[in-house]
Amino acid sequence: MANIGVIGSKGAMGEALRRVIEASGHDYAGGADKGDDVGNLADVSDVLVDFSAPAALQANLHAAIGAGIPIVIGTTGLEPKHHDAIDQAARAVPVLQTGNTSLGVTLLAHLVREAASRLGEDWDIEIVEMHHRRKVDAPSGTALLLGEAAAGARGIDLDDNSESGRDGQTGPRDRGAIGFAALRGGTVAGEHSVILAGEQERLTLSHSAENREIFARGAVRAAEWLKGREPGRYTMEEVLGI
Amino acid sequence: MANIGVIGSKGAMGEALRRVIEASGHDYAGGADKGDDVGNLADVSDVLVDFSAPAALQANLHAAIGAGIPIVIGTTGLEPKHHDAIDQAARAVPVLQTGNTSLGVTLLAHLVREAASRLGEDWDIEIVEMHHRRKVDAPSGTALLLGEAAAGARGIDLDDNSESGRDGQTGPRDRGAIGFAALRGGTVAGEHSVILAGEQERLTLSHSAENREIFARGAVRAAEWLKGREPGRYTMEEVLGI
Amino acid sequence: MANIGVIGSKGAMGEALRRVIEASGHDYAGGADKGDDVGNLADVSDVLVDFSAPAALQANLHAAIGAGIPIVIGTTGLEPKHHDAIDQAARAVPVLQTGNTSLGVTLLAHLVREAASRLGEDWDIEIVEMHHRRKVDAPSGTALLLGEAAAGARGIDLDDNSESGRDGQTGPRDRGAIGFAALRGGTVAGEHSVILAGEQERLTLSHSAENREIFARGAVRAAEWLKGREPGRYTMEEVLGI
Amino acid sequence: MANIGVIGSKGAMGEALRRVIEASGHDYAGGADKGDDVGNLADVSDVLVDFSAPAALQANLHAAIGAGIPIVIGTTGLEPKHHDAIDQAARAVPVLQTGNTSLGVTLLAHLVREAASRLGEDWDIEIVEMHHRRKVDAPSGTALLLGEAAAGARGIDLDDNSESGRDGQTGPRDRGAIGFAALRGGTVAGEHSVILAGEQERLTLSHSAENREIFARGAVRAAEWLKGREPGRYTMEEVLGI
Repeated sequence: MANIGVIGSKGAMGEALRRVIEASGHDYAGGADKGDDVGNLADVSDVLVDFSAPAALQANLHAAIGAGIPIVIGTTGLEPKHHDAIDQAARAVPVLQTGNTSLGVTLLAHLVREAASRLGEDWDIEIVEMHHRRKVDAPSGTALLLGEAAAGARGIDLDDNSESGRDGQTGPRDRGAIGFAALRGGTVAGEHSVILAGEQERLTLSHSAENREIFARGAVRAAEWLKGREPGRYTMEEVLGI
Repeated sequence: MANIGVIGSKGAMGEALRRVIEASGHDYAGGADKGDDVGNLADVSDVLVDFSAPAALQANLHAAIGAGIPIVIGTTGLEPKHHDAIDQAARAVPVLQTGNTSLGVTLLAHLVREAASRLGEDWDIEIVEMHHRRKVDAPSGTALLLGEAAAGARGIDLDDNSESGRDGQTGPRDRGAIGFAALRGGTVAGEHSVILAGEQERLTLSHSAENREIFARGAVRAAEWLKGREPGRYTMEEVLGI
Repeated sequence: MANIGVIGSKGAMGEALRRVIEASGHDYAGGADKGDDVGNLADVSDVLVDFSAPAALQANLHAAIGAGIPIVIGTTGLEPKHHDAIDQAARAVPVLQTGNTSLGVTLLAHLVREAASRLGEDWDIEIVEMHHRRKVDAPSGTALLLGEAAAGARGIDLDDNSESGRDGQTGPRDRGAIGFAALRGGTVAGEHSVILAGEQERLTLSHSAENREIFARGAVRAAEWLKGREPGRYTMEEVLGI
Repeated sequence: MANIGVIGSKGAMGEALRRVIEASGHDYAGGADKGDDVGNLADVSDVLVDFSAPAALQANLHAAIGAGIPIVIGTTGLEPKHHDAIDQAARAVPVLQTGNTSLGVTLLAHLVREAASRLGEDWDIEIVEMHHRRKVDAPSGTALLLGEAAAGARGIDLDDNSESGRDGQTGPRDRGAIGFAALRGGTVAGEHSVILAGEQERLTLSHSAENREIFARGAVRAAEWLKGREPGRYTMEEVLGI
């Protein structure tokens, strides 16, 4: 059981984190948001979970180091300088930073790497995702993460090998291409399928989220796992033992 | 049981027709292709099935009229003048012309019309299809046919309301839009799904073809159904009793 | 806009109804539960929605008649005597009773009837559903409702023609049978697929619920539709214009 | 390129092997069936593929050893004594024996092991398969193979933990159970899905076969891979580099 402090506590993810922490038997140490002193929160926490903003990252890392406790960072939009700050902090305390805290998506990316590395280029890879009607970009960040996993396993560059948004006279599919398609509609929380299509057979590896609480759930699982580790920088893959 | 003659007998569809005719207990009256006299074939047939070319249409209709027998026309790429010729011929003999002879796709289009007309514009419609890696255009003709069915049921124009090939900063989905996405890979014969996504619930209507023989099968079923009808122009929907 | 009163207001469905009524711009006239006087609620409502218990049905119908307002009945477990009471009440006020208030499921059942009646017995019908791990019976009530829709369309009796829970040496599938399979796991709110499998092609008609709020949503839609109708007994199909 | 001899050449698999060997640029060294001298075939082959019968196994292994060439064994229904004979033969020549020669299914089983070992027992595992209407047993052998992969990864016994063919009052799902469901209909060559259902999220790993030729294709790939290896007993996993 851990006493978990939440940074970015007033956002949608902050509220979901509070619900998941309390439902999973941990203690909610408290929350901090813009204007609050994160150091005070760190002093009463066993571990911090940060879903705030890149601008707050440095102060959050300092608070974790000051209290000598681990920190999970789910904030998105990080730049190289933020990653440098994380590397620096990881010498003093355990830090886990990730762009996607879902355990299911993390595992799916691992399975995609396995499949893409075992099956040759005569298996075509297609990635299709569906999200709610208000999503403004395509493909989703998770679809790109899965595409990177496939491209990495094949030793190719994703940008040079992706076919996204086919429409019109496309010509035949390029050998080795990774295709993307985006569906939008209703209130779908997020569905991703990676299809490997060979001669007369097909593998499909899919993840479906019922709602966005799974990201809070995965972050809490990461916080549990991080508590008591040696200082260092960790990944979601390690939480799953990959 | 019918004695069925095939026009366009040397093409892939012609060969599939022969297999299906023989396997389904009918008699294969013979085949005609470029250079053959279709009139001779018509004389020994109960019904003709034509998968040849628009240029041959007029002669094929004449042969059917000469022998006083029905004709099923699955030839694609017809222009208004061909449709006029068909209307003319339909005064003398039963004629069934269709862009898609699959019974399953015909029924799917009917179900899409039903669903789109019952559910309001707060249900978003998305159409996703997958075909083999050699297909050179997107979306598929069948996907467009399904989109037309949905648009027609809603009384909107498909061209003005379709979102195809989403990629990049798309903005939120337009209310009432019909979305299209195309997957390509392996040897997939053809899969189509029409998704109606509402608040917290989704309907998905799908068709999957194991191979292209289903088009021959549907054409033979149409030929059976057409035999013995009154002169007139018929549709695949009528074969299904729709 | 309607002023909607909820009977059975303290149950999970009662709470969902309150949320949906308020979110959809209607007014929540109030709730009644065991021990409350339903007549008082009826006096301040435009229409009632009843998700209470069979034992309360008679009093609820009286309250609707007393106030001269429509009533939607989603209570399950009704017996013939309850249906007699509903028929009686429907002479005085509009009454809509249904075992499933989801618009999507209602439409799916209609599409299944359409498909099963158009396609012959050489298309095999299979129904597969998935629900959360705590569900204690199989197949689900909705799966059976879909099976009844298919059997009715074919003019056969479901009990005499169903194959449920295949396991072991089953022998080949019976011609004309309707198969059922049940998956259980996780927190799945409810997914149903009806598969029609023919020669080399397949139609799949599916419904997926993200959560159980869709039942409240459908009941509110039914209440809107019922307001201002003539006395009589109505169905969810009619709400969809079927 | 290899000169491949086929034992059991007159069966459906034997004929598929001949087609695949020729289409993939290898040479078809010839076929042997009941009554033929396998030794003669071995003498003109680089590698043998055996889809005959358990009773013929010993003679087939002798022929491979006599000619000093590798042998792929896809024959099913092997008993312990047959496995002993294979182990014995594997001291002299390379032998690959497998119950399923599909590359896709082999990889799927690997992915299922990966997923089941990373995700805890709070992720429920369900396996659903669909096959044509003439299949006489359920679940399919491949479904059981996938169930064994999942059970093995969790260190549990499949027989003690499987729930197959749910029907009626089943009670809630047992923690740690592996569920099976079987769909039958049409001409479906074989589809398998392994679902891992957790809290609010789901992973689905699926394989779909367009026809049974994939088994011949995988066997030919195994034969290629086996040619030139050291004596020993190999598996399909090794062909995929697992």
